[in-house]
Amino acid sequence: MSEPRVGVVMGSQSDWPTMKEAVGILTELGVACETRIVSAHRTPDRLWRYGGEAAGRGLKAIVAGAGGAAHLPGMLASKTRVPVIGVPVQTKALGGVDSLYSIVQMPRGFPVATMAIGAAGALNGGLMAAQIVALEDAELAARIDAWRAALAASIPEEPSDD
Amino acid sequence: MSEPRVGVVMGSQSDWPTMKEAVGILTELGVACETRIVSAHRTPDRLWRYGGEAAGRGLKAIVAGAGGAAHLPGMLASKTRVPVIGVPVQTKALGGVDSLYSIVQMPRGFPVATMAIGAAGALNGGLMAAQIVALEDAELAARIDAWRAALAASIPEEPSDD
Amino acid sequence: MSEPRVGVVMGSQSDWPTMKEAVGILTELGVACETRIVSAHRTPDRLWRYGGEAAGRGLKAIVAGAGGAAHLPGMLASKTRVPVIGVPVQTKALGGVDSLYSIVQMPRGFPVATMAIGAAGALNGGLMAAQIVALEDAELAARIDAWRAALAASIPEEPSDD
Amino acid sequence: MSEPRVGVVMGSQSDWPTMKEAVGILTELGVACETRIVSAHRTPDRLWRYGGEAAGRGLKAIVAGAGGAAHLPGMLASKTRVPVIGVPVQTKALGGVDSLYSIVQMPRGFPVATMAIGAAGALNGGLMAAQIVALEDAELAARIDAWRAALAASIPEEPSDD
Amino acid sequence: MSEPRVGVVMGSQSDWPTMKEAVGILTELGVACETRIVSAHRTPDRLWRYGGEAAGRGLKAIVAGAGGAAHLPGMLASKTRVPVIGVPVQTKALGGVDSLYSIVQMPRGFPVATMAIGAAGALNGGLMAAQIVALEDAELAARIDAWRAALAASIPEEPSDD
Amino acid sequence: MSEPRVGVVMGSQSDWPTMKEAVGILTELGVACETRIVSAHRTPDRLWRYGGEAAGRGLKAIVAGAGGAAHLPGMLASKTRVPVIGVPVQTKALGGVDSLYSIVQMPRGFPVATMAIGAAGALNGGLMAAQIVALEDAELAARIDAWRAALAASIPEEPSDD
Amino acid sequence: MSEPRVGVVMGSQSDWPTMKEAVGILTELGVACETRIVSAHRTPDRLWRYGGEAAGRGLKAIVAGAGGAAHLPGMLASKTRVPVIGVPVQTKALGGVDSLYSIVQMPRGFPVATMAIGAAGALNGGLMAAQIVALEDAELAARIDAWRAALAASIPEEPSDD
Amino acid sequence: MSEPRVGVVMGSQSDWPTMKEAVGILTELGVACETRIVSAHRTPDRLWRYGGEAAGRGLKAIVAGAGGAAHLPGMLASKTRVPVIGVPVQTKALGGVDSLYSIVQMPRGFPVATMAIGAAGALNGGLMAAQIVALEDAELAARIDAWRAALAASIPEEPSDD
Repeated sequence: MSEPRVGVVMGSQSDWPTMKEAVGILTELGVACETRIVSAHRTPDRLWRYGGEAAGRGLKAIVAGAGGAAHLPGMLASKTRVPVIGVPVQTKALGGVDSLYSIVQMPRGFPVATMAIGAAGALNGGLMAAQIVALEDAELAARIDAWRAALAASIPEEPSDD
Repeated sequence: MSEPRVGVVMGSQSDWPTMKEAVGILTELGVACETRIVSAHRTPDRLWRYGGEAAGRGLKAIVAGAGGAAHLPGMLASKTRVPVIGVPVQTKALGGVDSLYSIVQMPRGFPVATMAIGAAGALNGGLMAAQIVALEDAELAARIDAWRAALAASIPEEPSDD
Repeated sequence: MSEPRVGVVMGSQSDWPTMKEAVGILTELGVACETRIVSAHRTPDRLWRYGGEAAGRGLKAIVAGAGGAAHLPGMLASKTRVPVIGVPVQTKALGGVDSLYSIVQMPRGFPVATMAIGAAGALNGGLMAAQIVALEDAELAARIDAWRAALAASIPEEPSDD
Repeated sequence: MSEPRVGVVMGSQSDWPTMKEAVGILTELGVACETRIVSAHRTPDRLWRYGGEAAGRGLKAIVAGAGGAAHLPGMLASKTRVPVIGVPVQTKALGGVDSLYSIVQMPRGFPVATMAIGAAGALNGGLMAAQIVALEDAELAARIDAWRAALAASIPEEPSDD
Repeated sequence: MSEPRVGVVMGSQSDWPTMKEAVGILTELGVACETRIVSAHRTPDRLWRYGGEAAGRGLKAIVAGAGGAAHLPGMLASKTRVPVIGVPVQTKALGGVDSLYSIVQMPRGFPVATMAIGAAGALNGGLMAAQIVALEDAELAARIDAWRAALAASIPEEPSDD
Repeated sequence: MSEPRVGVVMGSQSDWPTMKEAVGILTELGVACETRIVSAHRTPDRLWRYGGEAAGRGLKAIVAGAGGAAHLPGMLASKTRVPVIGVPVQTKALGGVDSLYSIVQMPRGFPVATMAIGAAGALNGGLMAAQIVALEDAELAARIDAWRAALAASIPEEPSDD
Repeated sequence: MSEPRVGVVMGSQSDWPTMKEAVGILTELGVACETRIVSAHRTPDRLWRYGGEAAGRGLKAIVAGAGGAAHLPGMLASKTRVPVIGVPVQTKALGGVDSLYSIVQMPRGFPVATMAIGAAGALNGGLMAAQIVALEDAELAARIDAWRAALAASIPEEPSDD
Repeated sequence: MSEPRVGVVMGSQSDWPTMKEAVGILTELGVACETRIVSAHRTPDRLWRYGGEAAGRGLKAIVAGAGGAAHLPGMLASKTRVPVIGVPVQTKALGGVDSLYSIVQMPRGFPVATMAIGAAGALNGGLMAAQIVALEDAELAARIDAWRAALAASIPEEPSDD
């Protein structure tokens, strides 16, 4: 199998039902990716290492999902200049607003490309990673264009009762 | 002057004090960029054209700032697969939460890489664009690394009263 | 069948369970309407065309529902001077506050007549459209008055345990 | 002077700096309007009468602004089938979210066409009223089209430092 | 049966499951009350009459529950100097924050004594009404004191697993 | 001077600019009142004593203002069956939403009659206290009616530019 | 059994399913604790006594959970210099934001060490108490270190579908 | 000078006006402390080292302030079992709610003892640290008791106009 061009990481196994949307779209578009659990708080050394090696390993983007006081995307961004795409995982008490604010409100110097809360955001995180890779991969660009065209074509003119 | 690799667009002249932070960092890092006012509601045809031509013109990223019911970043994303980076401009009544939700909560298929509200988000939008360009530009990557190193080095060990 | 005087449009088939409340009240009041799925992001050209042709086709109002980063109502408003009535569809993570802010916080020049979040808002969207049509249709005005009178008359004096 | 076709009402003299934006655009577009202070709580009988007479007097729309627990637009809507357009006035403590929720979250049967918080919403309220009147007034429709065209034409291609 | 000293009113039959908590505590404390559905928007004349007659009929307090753009408590307060106690009914989309803001943020001159959102607020609304009546009814005061003492006495020292 | 019938208490000297609105309206309406600083956290014994003695001293209502984690109104309510009226003082960071939630969301058994955030709420707190006292004081009731009539009469028909 | 070093208190039996997480971790780490129901509003004297005796009884920390207008943690903090750790219990209408604001926004002089909303916050409350005790108990410190190491070691490298 | 028992750290020089409140109270109470700027994103290695050495250096508590996507307190908590006290610094766009959520909503295993937003929270952070140290320092405990007594004694019985 080819070298992964995108890393899909998450703070916990419990984020996987959300984050597998990112893997799904990357796979569908033929972008090799790897998946890792990297907890900012429980495995900070793993985070350090993952961030520190990302550029050298040739990753073009990292899609990072986390919930609550979600520090994973921002801390990765502090360790690498590879674009980090953040996915706020929905939370029980606050609906994911806590995740969103913890990810998006980064200070000057350390951007995190934040997506929508939850599964739609995870899929879009994978898609954004693919769009970045496609900047230098014309075949992938064509596949994305086709995927978008199919999405548009799938929309019926009128709603139906089922 | 070289061809722009990044477009910095905004919904209104009133967004410029925020968005010039994006231009500032891009210029500092030596990334050629262009600036445009593209109003989703007042100049939709301009938006259509800008989005439609972005990939063909070789843009690697578009940094788009808007406030309130901020539709510019998302509508651009519907017209191009070039990565769109959204900057929520702060608003008077709601502080920019309206801008943030209007930009970040995109549906499946059309990601917008959302930054923090306001000037910090604009600077980070420029920086994220540079990080994307740097994936295939080793000299730019080195300049970003140096910029980040200088940022870290500028932090004193202890706070001072002035 | 008579020409539609009101368009009921929505961003996705998934908005239909909400938006059919608008169609229901319009039908009950005898206002001819049409239904369309018009996705701001997936079918922008359809949106362009629908907005561009609305006035010429004699539509008196457009009821537009969308959720999340809900750009459909505002983008329609940028393409037509026919009154656009916006319905914020409830969302899973944020309850529809994202939809509400994305629809109501429009900039100067492009009003969207925003309704309540969810099904009550959709019904009211249809009713507001009917009220607009009724300004020049005395029979419809009488039917609305009767509908309102019946609504008032249906309220019992006292609550009951079932 | 011609009979007013639009009523611009507000809950208090203190709402006037906001609401005069509505009068300004109506005047600019040549739509005759009247202004009234109608306090839902301090002058409920005035509200009753104003709402009760609106249709008979030939008003085509009422633009109603109020702040805080903003009951004026909704109570007017309960007294008339003339379209009521609500403008949430910005408040000191909560920024106008209280005004917005009090106006937009109307129950089934009594829609209020809600605009953005503050001055932009007031201008848009006047414009929405004009758009409604224009449905049966081709000359006004042409003036609105011209106003919108001028708005679009006024947008420069690029931002400038002053 | 004795004359009612407290009115328990609500905007809709659907508020009854919440508002019967108010009736329950009033009945338990032996305070005669009446229940009415009074919709601010659907039956404004009923509201007018109920508010207008409250003082003359000898009511000592009105407990009024409503949800969403909840205008009933405030509009009653504009029609009577009898203390109005407001109960924000929980809503589906916004959890009742809309109800709360619509009730509590009253302007100078028209206080509404606002309770917590939902059933606890409804019970407390009834209790507050009883506390007001008890100011001039020593026997009721004693019953309230006993009820409070029993409430305190019912609290075990330690939690148990069931 | 006559015995106070209403207590106006506040958590801190810094609440006085807000709370003096309550004293102002009570004085204007001729309701004798006393003012006290009672800090729930700094002077809990004072709170205990004030609450414990309120009924015996013949107070008919206590208007209690506090900000942030505002525990004063609720803790007073736990010590007395005299109606406690809570005034959420505006705060710098959160605008007073923290004060509002801390005061209004009381559990079953201990109602606090919550007013609007800030100075309008303080005035209304005094007015609500007067309305309670007026239930058994016909002269005060007449003064309140006159005050309300004057308030209504002071509203001009139309707004003016200054 | 040894003397309790930590008190775990809660406002109501209904908080127990949340707060037993605190007891669970304390027990797992071998820190003796006691559990009490102490309602700020229903049993204020119990609160007074518990707070007043805490330091003398040798408690090193109090973990206090409450929901809604959650006054228990702050009122305990006003009665003792023993560190009070607050746990905001999730609420039905507002998700626990009311609990959070009521606990965390304490005024100068009376800190409450606030944890996350709900069960995770309760567990962390117990853990924070243990960390405080461990400052002078090397064996407990070692057990905490081991617990943390085990937590880190339990994280798999990659997510799995179940 | 004696060894510091408490560390006061902050993410940026710009947090110092807030965080010096913590230093002020610690100094007033005679608790030796040190101050450091430790940026989670700009100087992650410094954070790593500071957290890693805290226990060994004998620190009894760390007071950590940060704003926006505030990762410093939580990341320190992942590196040490020394109690970390978090201070959410107020922010321009969101008032500090972003800081609060980023600090308080920590996952199981890594508590941060969160204080109020802004300067009051910073002072309380220092005080909480002192309370922890005082558990094993009877003289400090007495100084805290005296400080609290003085605070209570400073409260006048009645408010004054200045």
